[in-house]
Amino acid sequence: MSRCPHTLNYHAMAPHPVVELTSEASWNLIEDRFTPYGKETLAKLVYFLQDEILPSVKLAHAQLPKDPVQRWKTVIPVIEELKVKARKLGLWNLFLSKTHYPEHGVPLTNVEYAVMAEILGRGGHLASEAVNCSAPDTGNMEVIARYGSPEQQKKWLVPLLNGEIRSAFAMTERFVSSSDARNIKTSIKREGDEIVINGHKWWISGAGDPRTKLHLVMGKSDPDNANVYQQQSVVIVPADAPGVKIIRPMEIFGYDDAPEGHCEVIYENVRVPVGNLVLGWGRGFEIIQGRLGPGRIHHCMRSIGAASRALDLMIERVTDPTRNTFDKFLYQHGTVVAEIARSRAEIESARLLVMSAALQIDKQRAKGALKEIGIAKFVVPAMACGVVDRAMQAYGAEGLSQDQELASMFAQLRTLRLADGPDEVHIQQVGQRELKRAPGLHKRAAELKEKEFAVLSKAGIKAHL
Amino acid sequence: MSRCPHTLNYHAMAPHPVVELTSEASWNLIEDRFTPYGKETLAKLVYFLQDEILPSVKLAHAQLPKDPVQRWKTVIPVIEELKVKARKLGLWNLFLSKTHYPEHGVPLTNVEYAVMAEILGRGGHLASEAVNCSAPDTGNMEVIARYGSPEQQKKWLVPLLNGEIRSAFAMTERFVSSSDARNIKTSIKREGDEIVINGHKWWISGAGDPRTKLHLVMGKSDPDNANVYQQQSVVIVPADAPGVKIIRPMEIFGYDDAPEGHCEVIYENVRVPVGNLVLGWGRGFEIIQGRLGPGRIHHCMRSIGAASRALDLMIERVTDPTRNTFDKFLYQHGTVVAEIARSRAEIESARLLVMSAALQIDKQRAKGALKEIGIAKFVVPAMACGVVDRAMQAYGAEGLSQDQELASMFAQLRTLRLADGPDEVHIQQVGQRELKRAPGLHKRAAELKEKEFAVLSKAGIKAHL
Amino acid sequence: MSRCPHTLNYHAMAPHPVVELTSEASWNLIEDRFTPYGKETLAKLVYFLQDEILPSVKLAHAQLPKDPVQRWKTVIPVIEELKVKARKLGLWNLFLSKTHYPEHGVPLTNVEYAVMAEILGRGGHLASEAVNCSAPDTGNMEVIARYGSPEQQKKWLVPLLNGEIRSAFAMTERFVSSSDARNIKTSIKREGDEIVINGHKWWISGAGDPRTKLHLVMGKSDPDNANVYQQQSVVIVPADAPGVKIIRPMEIFGYDDAPEGHCEVIYENVRVPVGNLVLGWGRGFEIIQGRLGPGRIHHCMRSIGAASRALDLMIERVTDPTRNTFDKFLYQHGTVVAEIARSRAEIESARLLVMSAALQIDKQRAKGALKEIGIAKFVVPAMACGVVDRAMQAYGAEGLSQDQELASMFAQLRTLRLADGPDEVHIQQVGQRELKRAPGLHKRAAELKEKEFAVLSKAGIKAHL
Amino acid sequence: MSRCPHTLNYHAMAPHPVVELTSEASWNLIEDRFTPYGKETLAKLVYFLQDEILPSVKLAHAQLPKDPVQRWKTVIPVIEELKVKARKLGLWNLFLSKTHYPEHGVPLTNVEYAVMAEILGRGGHLASEAVNCSAPDTGNMEVIARYGSPEQQKKWLVPLLNGEIRSAFAMTERFVSSSDARNIKTSIKREGDEIVINGHKWWISGAGDPRTKLHLVMGKSDPDNANVYQQQSVVIVPADAPGVKIIRPMEIFGYDDAPEGHCEVIYENVRVPVGNLVLGWGRGFEIIQGRLGPGRIHHCMRSIGAASRALDLMIERVTDPTRNTFDKFLYQHGTVVAEIARSRAEIESARLLVMSAALQIDKQRAKGALKEIGIAKFVVPAMACGVVDRAMQAYGAEGLSQDQELASMFAQLRTLRLADGPDEVHIQQVGQRELKRAPGLHKRAAELKEKEFAVLSKAGIKAHL
Repeated sequence: MSRCPHTLNYHAMAPHPVVELTSEASWNLIEDRFTPYGKETLAKLVYFLQDEILPSVKLAHAQLPKDPVQRWKTVIPVIEELKVKARKLGLWNLFLSKTHYPEHGVPLTNVEYAVMAEILGRGGHLASEAVNCSAPDTGNMEVIARYGSPEQQKKWLVPLLNGEIRSAFAMTERFVSSSDARNIKTSIKREGDEIVINGHKWWISGAGDPRTKLHLVMGKSDPDNANVYQQQSVVIVPADAPGVKIIRPMEIFGYDDAPEGHCEVIYENVRVPVGNLVLGWGRGFEIIQGRLGPGRIHHCMRSIGAASRALDLMIERVTDPTRNTFDKFLYQHGTVVAEIARSRAEIESARLLVMSAALQIDKQRAKGALKEIGIAKFVVPAMACGVVDRAMQAYGAEGLSQDQELASMFAQLRTLRLADGPDEVHIQQVGQRELKRAPGLHKRAAELKEKEFAVLSKAGIKAHL
Repeated sequence: MSRCPHTLNYHAMAPHPVVELTSEASWNLIEDRFTPYGKETLAKLVYFLQDEILPSVKLAHAQLPKDPVQRWKTVIPVIEELKVKARKLGLWNLFLSKTHYPEHGVPLTNVEYAVMAEILGRGGHLASEAVNCSAPDTGNMEVIARYGSPEQQKKWLVPLLNGEIRSAFAMTERFVSSSDARNIKTSIKREGDEIVINGHKWWISGAGDPRTKLHLVMGKSDPDNANVYQQQSVVIVPADAPGVKIIRPMEIFGYDDAPEGHCEVIYENVRVPVGNLVLGWGRGFEIIQGRLGPGRIHHCMRSIGAASRALDLMIERVTDPTRNTFDKFLYQHGTVVAEIARSRAEIESARLLVMSAALQIDKQRAKGALKEIGIAKFVVPAMACGVVDRAMQAYGAEGLSQDQELASMFAQLRTLRLADGPDEVHIQQVGQRELKRAPGLHKRAAELKEKEFAVLSKAGIKAHL
Repeated sequence: MSRCPHTLNYHAMAPHPVVELTSEASWNLIEDRFTPYGKETLAKLVYFLQDEILPSVKLAHAQLPKDPVQRWKTVIPVIEELKVKARKLGLWNLFLSKTHYPEHGVPLTNVEYAVMAEILGRGGHLASEAVNCSAPDTGNMEVIARYGSPEQQKKWLVPLLNGEIRSAFAMTERFVSSSDARNIKTSIKREGDEIVINGHKWWISGAGDPRTKLHLVMGKSDPDNANVYQQQSVVIVPADAPGVKIIRPMEIFGYDDAPEGHCEVIYENVRVPVGNLVLGWGRGFEIIQGRLGPGRIHHCMRSIGAASRALDLMIERVTDPTRNTFDKFLYQHGTVVAEIARSRAEIESARLLVMSAALQIDKQRAKGALKEIGIAKFVVPAMACGVVDRAMQAYGAEGLSQDQELASMFAQLRTLRLADGPDEVHIQQVGQRELKRAPGLHKRAAELKEKEFAVLSKAGIKAHL
Repeated sequence: MSRCPHTLNYHAMAPHPVVELTSEASWNLIEDRFTPYGKETLAKLVYFLQDEILPSVKLAHAQLPKDPVQRWKTVIPVIEELKVKARKLGLWNLFLSKTHYPEHGVPLTNVEYAVMAEILGRGGHLASEAVNCSAPDTGNMEVIARYGSPEQQKKWLVPLLNGEIRSAFAMTERFVSSSDARNIKTSIKREGDEIVINGHKWWISGAGDPRTKLHLVMGKSDPDNANVYQQQSVVIVPADAPGVKIIRPMEIFGYDDAPEGHCEVIYENVRVPVGNLVLGWGRGFEIIQGRLGPGRIHHCMRSIGAASRALDLMIERVTDPTRNTFDKFLYQHGTVVAEIARSRAEIESARLLVMSAALQIDKQRAKGALKEIGIAKFVVPAMACGVVDRAMQAYGAEGLSQDQELASMFAQLRTLRLADGPDEVHIQQVGQRELKRAPGLHKRAAELKEKEFAVLSKAGIKAHL
């Protein structure tokens, strides 16, 4: 193994690569929750990011044709090369924790993967894809690993785990407020040995990719069920099934995110075998609930990585002597130093929030960490948008352009304030959860008042009512 | 003229169209500063926006090819049609005030045009171009009208005023911090009867447009002049002069803003006759100073129009019964009503700030309104970004997409926090201007202390030191 | 009158005193709405503030005993002296507009008084009281002037207008959420020729003052009335009536605001003649509605005066050479200049908001200005708290202490975010008012869609649905 | 020991008292850093807070006379009783870590005490004093324990550790910007066997207390020393030494914080023996530097306790059915739920920041935790002020009054944005520290550019310059 520097003992490496890329204090807080394997993997990942991923970002960009048709038919070569290298290094499927997925998972906890997700977040989409940890494949693999039949796992999960194919998750619908999943209208009906799907979806990430071979489609199989949470089912639809129509790519601030894309898709009388039903009739809601927990934390940690990268870029710019104005460095003007300090403080506290949520998931599963996940979900992407916005401002117009990664970073982060529930939903849920403490607080307040009264009476003082 | 409803008496129109599109209270504040002509023109503009411009936005979009080459060779037909209609209605060159440009201007004050600019801001780029009031042509026309020779005016100003050609203003340079204009490196040298230009510019708005026939190029003609404000000159460069190389369009977020664009341009040994020098050698700084004053206010008012439009869209969405979630209208959830109230308050106060600045320009010219212009410049675009951001959030992912105008509106507004000086520069200037009040304040404080002491002494009370 | 410099022609005064104390641009916006009398009065007020009121603040403080009993029995001598001077100068009852109160009012519009209220706001409580424009007397005088019987006016209004007595307004109740006025519990019953009042109020401003001779008490006279807005009545209660019990002064952040105070008051079987009923049985709600409109604007303008004063103090401090740290002026550190710029921008826009509301009241009465009043109400006090907070920070611990006026200014301003309805109520009302525009917006959007479709069809383009 | 419930096994207690008072997730993050002794002590402290301290707050208030003279001569009986109880329970001097103070300290780490400080923060000043952990005594004990001579320790430290006497720390000076400690003017001169002190200090906490027996006075003993950090010395001055003149109590907002107070003190020719010099001549700067590190973290954790308490109070109020308005609970109005969610998120992330800083201190001492301490210092008190402000708003005017602890809590927290360096100083320091990463970032960026170029070249693509 002497050829590969990434197998060096983690502690021997200097300078400490994680501390450099995250923060010494937050590392200290969770270092002893890392196994030797976790540390080794993290160290490899850091080097892989710096040596392989980041230097390839511009090439990946260049290998994507500008032509509006061709760009959707392209498999970007450098990504496939990076995937081969990553897998050889054992940097593969890091998101899938052995604890929850004994068969296919890697021996990493949520806390461990959280730190790695921050590192990945510095490399954008390319980094996550290179190590086979990119949405929506991650959630889809979790779904099939947890709920899929052996046949489904063999046919779809294995090639996904191998990074041979990609996948889409089709939930959001056009003309429907999908932050309330009960509004979904796509119809899923059994006809003999087949399931017939009809629906109009959009924002289907991955649907544009030539490598995508399946869509997990959520729809209503029992729309009249009295229990509104048992009306839905999830079906696996081959991407090339007749009736699957990719209408157009949706754009985010002008970006089409080809070749993956976020497409508008119509399912018109699509027929699949009944064996493609996942888990069982009426269990769609259960499936999407299970799909969302840790994934949100991973998005948050990647956002923190992005924000950290943006802050680094900002510091580079404001200390660049070729950018002086009025005989001063940019950082010597106005509020720049204060904005850097605030950004640093916000990144540190956001990271701690997400780490705390990740640990809570490790201890109590996602269900016992809903408050922490909810807080992270509404705090972190908004925070990251703010940090990136400040960095853009420091770069002037260049910061908004294709010459810097900041504007596309902002666009990605901005979607996270909506994806998996808009900020507002999470804010309300966290607030409502707090309100549940009210009875306990009223009880304690009543007890306190009683004791207070006793203490005052004993001292001969008449309490003001 | 009975065919044209726009000549109807302004006061007879119901419902009051300006009040509907701006606000009754702010209209009341400045109504009596409008001449009958101003009111008439405003009324026409409102109808023209609603009847002609807004219904044409999607068509203009559709008429722009997606092909990355063709889109830069296109003159969008509907824009040219709208220009013809607008001119017939007298909605033409409204930005050019007769007060300052007696020959070519229209009889409107800054206050009057400010209100119209807000209306235009609701129609985006299309609206401004339809009435020949779009940057950078506006500023360029002002420059040539004020500083150009009769020959220059005849050759360039007249077709610009007629909307027959377009133009670019080339100041910002690549690899240079251009918020300090003294950093500019482009070389402008006289060689015999010619001027030779060499430089590397970018963010040259309009340079991509096939109709653009001239660039106003700012560069250094006397880089060793002890007075750093006399080193620069401005030259008119025909767009098709040999050596003018359009390198690429810069993108803002993912938008290229074709066909106008914001291009990277290299001027390589470009030669023009000496007669193309504007105003005189070493007077470039003077020219750009004069160019920036009222233009900033116009940008601000358009931003307010954009924010108003965004708020309208937000209200439409949150009251749309087809968008209900959890059996409630969107507006019945969480903080939506409060965000609408805050947006309204911010729009109202921003409008008042800009109106106050416009009036100050009318009374004291731009020089006497620097404080007001500076405040508007750093308050308004940031405010508008915030309002649009809330509206995007209400629309979910659709709000970030090409199906709504919000995301591109955000991108445009975001550039205004950088164009004509980043927010930070204006904040510092306004702050420094406040500090100039210090001597007066110290003097008054000393007088007060003296009187205070006298009052206390007279009352027999020893002042605590 | 040659003895009095305040009768000098306003325009002859240099430097322009109002512009110095407010802002040139906002003055320009409303100058031509001032009558010569208005300008004259404003000029006198400015000089009176600087020459008489501000130098007396410390003396007024010193003349108030620290003893917890004596301070509530004190009439501060310098205030009474200032009142005599003010009245001689014609600076008296400026809040009472002749337009609405032809008999007792002064010939000033709301816009004119708004500017004066800002000036008064720089002098704190002392200034308002010196010119007989201090709450709650102002509102009480308006009530009795508008709704009182001739006997009530003779007995109570005349001495109030003369500044001979003071008054209290008793609405807020202990143990009751009084932001919903319908919750009020105080009982007002007729028994023969008498009215019997029983209730438990608090935060009764003025109730502590030895000069206070009457309380206007709001209570329920008809609690079972089906119309919840006709259950209430207002009665004049002499301050010395048997059964009126001042329980204790309420404190605001540690301040008791003696001698006026904000007291807890119990009315226990208080009996007054039926002639003390104001306006009529069941008309209490109508009375308090009428009482609140313009008063809110006056509070807002005083807040702007306070904020302006705080900003002046901040500028004085950060430019004070004796306060240098690390060899720099305070303003040369960190974000100080930016905070000053932001404060200036916030003050300017807040002033414009209130002026616009005041003008709207002049044009449409308070009812037609509810949006503008509501916006001002939730924007201005919060803004002023923020500006004062920054100024406190610049002064260090001294800024929080009795040696500067900032901390008590903050406490006063903080109450204004609650008085006359908490911010939240006004935010909701402004938001709801915006939502009322929804039907119009939906209608216009539908029309636009139709036109858009026609335009696209005509051009042979099939609109994307 | 069966009499004392506080010796019960910590884990047997239900419901888990710390989790209830702090948060499960943050407790999970640091639980395994607690020794059994740490857990036991924490459990006792929680019960002591609830059973003894909180019920005594009003009594302590009542036992303080209102008379402006007597209140400064009072030893509040209930505090002394609580001290006796606390000491018996082993809840004593918890701030003094055995790690750093082997002789006098308790076996608690900074992380352990941090959690306890949050608990203390819920009980305000009374809680900290009851367990002998209140400033400025804590810092003074640390100074004498670390730097004091055996005689000084015997005479002053022992009674301080026993809670028999109190102390003051005299650094801040009137008319001097003390955020730059080099500005200090107080003179400390040796004359024979005596030291003579002359100076004018203010904001000397504890100087008003009748139990205070010593002042640690910082001044200049060698003002001409070329090394500006060796000009200062610290001397112990007995509180009753001739020439120690307590001028007046400073107020914070309207609070005098009697009997402790924050006094203006003049030292006029005060003479003490040379043995009262601490550590050595010219070592004053070293002493104050050592005094400030962990103390800042303790203040921060107490602030978090205060904020948590305020949020609890807010939740109590908005769920109180007697406070309904317009037929709704307060929490059903407007933005209340969102504000609660935000407050919760801010408290959680602030707590994590401080815990992370405390752990960093445990690992790297204060010197290795400057970034973390700095961030906590400028984030936490401002956050806590915000949370308390929202709670005040929910309580209406009552929230600003003496009937709720919120307003005085706000005043205390507001001082923490200034004490031990204003926010601005810490923001600048954290920002400057970030800028030190610039060389490393530039180096890595250069390397990345090189690799990127190699990657592109290898792929045959010419990089855009």
